[in-house]
Amino acid sequence: MTTTMTQDIPPDLKQIQTDIVDAAERLRGIAVRTPLLDCPVALTGGLGRVLIKAEVLQHTGSFKFRGAYNFISQLDNDIRSRGIVAFSSGNHAQAVAAVSKMFDTRATIVMPADAPRLKIEATRDYGANVVLYDRRSESREDIAAALVNDLGATLVPPYDHRMTIAGQGTVGLEIMEDLALRNLNPDIVLVPCSGGGLVAGSATAIKHGAPDAAIYAVEPEGYDDTTRSLRSSQLEQVDGLTPSICDALLVQKPGDITFSINRQLLAGGLVVTDAMARTAMAAAFRHLKLVVEPGGAVALAAVLNNLIEMTDKTIIVVCSGGNVDPDTFTKALNGPSTEALNGPRGRSKI
Amino acid sequence: MTTTMTQDIPPDLKQIQTDIVDAAERLRGIAVRTPLLDCPVALTGGLGRVLIKAEVLQHTGSFKFRGAYNFISQLDNDIRSRGIVAFSSGNHAQAVAAVSKMFDTRATIVMPADAPRLKIEATRDYGANVVLYDRRSESREDIAAALVNDLGATLVPPYDHRMTIAGQGTVGLEIMEDLALRNLNPDIVLVPCSGGGLVAGSATAIKHGAPDAAIYAVEPEGYDDTTRSLRSSQLEQVDGLTPSICDALLVQKPGDITFSINRQLLAGGLVVTDAMARTAMAAAFRHLKLVVEPGGAVALAAVLNNLIEMTDKTIIVVCSGGNVDPDTFTKALNGPSTEALNGPRGRSKI
Repeated sequence: MTTTMTQDIPPDLKQIQTDIVDAAERLRGIAVRTPLLDCPVALTGGLGRVLIKAEVLQHTGSFKFRGAYNFISQLDNDIRSRGIVAFSSGNHAQAVAAVSKMFDTRATIVMPADAPRLKIEATRDYGANVVLYDRRSESREDIAAALVNDLGATLVPPYDHRMTIAGQGTVGLEIMEDLALRNLNPDIVLVPCSGGGLVAGSATAIKHGAPDAAIYAVEPEGYDDTTRSLRSSQLEQVDGLTPSICDALLVQKPGDITFSINRQLLAGGLVVTDAMARTAMAAAFRHLKLVVEPGGAVALAAVLNNLIEMTDKTIIVVCSGGNVDPDTFTKALNGPSTEALNGPRGRSKI
Repeated sequence: MTTTMTQDIPPDLKQIQTDIVDAAERLRGIAVRTPLLDCPVALTGGLGRVLIKAEVLQHTGSFKFRGAYNFISQLDNDIRSRGIVAFSSGNHAQAVAAVSKMFDTRATIVMPADAPRLKIEATRDYGANVVLYDRRSESREDIAAALVNDLGATLVPPYDHRMTIAGQGTVGLEIMEDLALRNLNPDIVLVPCSGGGLVAGSATAIKHGAPDAAIYAVEPEGYDDTTRSLRSSQLEQVDGLTPSICDALLVQKPGDITFSINRQLLAGGLVVTDAMARTAMAAAFRHLKLVVEPGGAVALAAVLNNLIEMTDKTIIVVCSGGNVDPDTFTKALNGPSTEALNGPRGRSKI
């Protein structure tokens, strides 16, 4: 594990909040305003009130569309027309490919060769040129940098950029708007975390309206770099050697900007196992009728496995993505954790 | 096939529309206001604009909650407290059980022994007493009538009642409201059909605002009683001997009230095979991130299999339920129609 000090980045939270509001205006009528769904008591046991931000229903099947659109839509026409480059395990890939197509510009996406087949196919389906690399031996940043050089294209950062963070932060803004309509205040908010852009942006918007909300980054076992960094107050890196089904959450080190926001706003990090993620996918299938991918299900997994005390609390769970291969999904439904389909906490009213 | 004349029922469409508006008021903040989602062009080929009414996200996983709540909430307290009875293959069962629990009254539900395990379990989970019967040799109507007699309870009709139809009709009302927000007018509306309550109510609300909309009942092969009845202008009954995976749509004869509405308002019926329904389930998994049960997927199946001409049209597809066993879902994802996962109509922009 290596460490890097980050105190040289003082992000202006007021400016980020303004950026998020601007991003929401830009995304209006373009991104899906995803619903905030009541989680059935049969699933939660009724200890607390759990609401699900169903971001799997976003265009391209994940929240990444928001950041990609916010970034790419603001590029000058002549710069944008020279093409777009991104590196991504799959969700940012699809989002950048889809937005590039909307703006009629060429996207080249650097993806790990072992990314889910469905994600690689979908990225190509949006018209992008996909460049595969070996996650163990090659650097996606280097490959992307070379492409940017060769093509004169623009790199769309997956998380560590102000405009990406602002786009993802509209998730938090919508959560606050929808809670206000129900006269609810969030006590706890759980957000899947990889590089930390979604949780950083969402936390900014949520804390703006609900300063007392406790917001947690949720990470898969072996990729708890943000959890560790929050604990030590400095950037921690994981070795990336642990196998994980949460393919969307395999970043090994928090972003500089995202962490400098998260260290100010988050209550901490929570870590879930693959088995917990699978149980959450099965529960979402049965009780929410949502297709959630492993990495998108970690926040729900944290609730279902009692990683937080939820009694009498209003808890918001972000289900951040739903791009999952049929095989992986089927295994989650039929695996050893099938008992969880009957509700891990007992059964009760809707 | 037997026939029955229905001309003795002249439903007052204006009154039904009023009932629907009243039902919407009753359901506000209680039912889920399910989203109208843009169907990705990758799925439809971009010939027309397809929007999905994602009613799988409704409480209890189907539209049936709306009608059950509208009916049960209007009963006098002392009548309601004597208990509720319903017969249902599973979605109405869960809805009646859940609403009965909300009103703290006992529900007894008559269900076929071969209903999906998940539906029977969920109905019990909502606290109902489930009475199983043999679909081939017993009459669910007779069993339910005996229970009503014995218990002094009230039967909640699954479709052929004004208050049930009004509740289901709020689906159509919401579609019209959401289309208005996007400045769209529906050209074609496709609705899964069993007894015909959902399509009758929805058609009433949609035709009220869009008199030129062509609304179709979509049925599974072998259970096309509404399609046949619309064609012959009299009540037709099917023999119910055809095997079908669409367990929610196995009614053999249209309702008297529902058909007398549908014969006035519908453009016709469409019929889909089990294979088509499976393909639609797989497509919803991949492109919409929604869990849709076989019967809930028939309207989507009609679009994906070119059963209507969609060029330049605005088409609304109701996905009416998502209560499906993992095994059935897995088969749909991995079955012979897996190729359809790549998009039956080619690939294009989002």
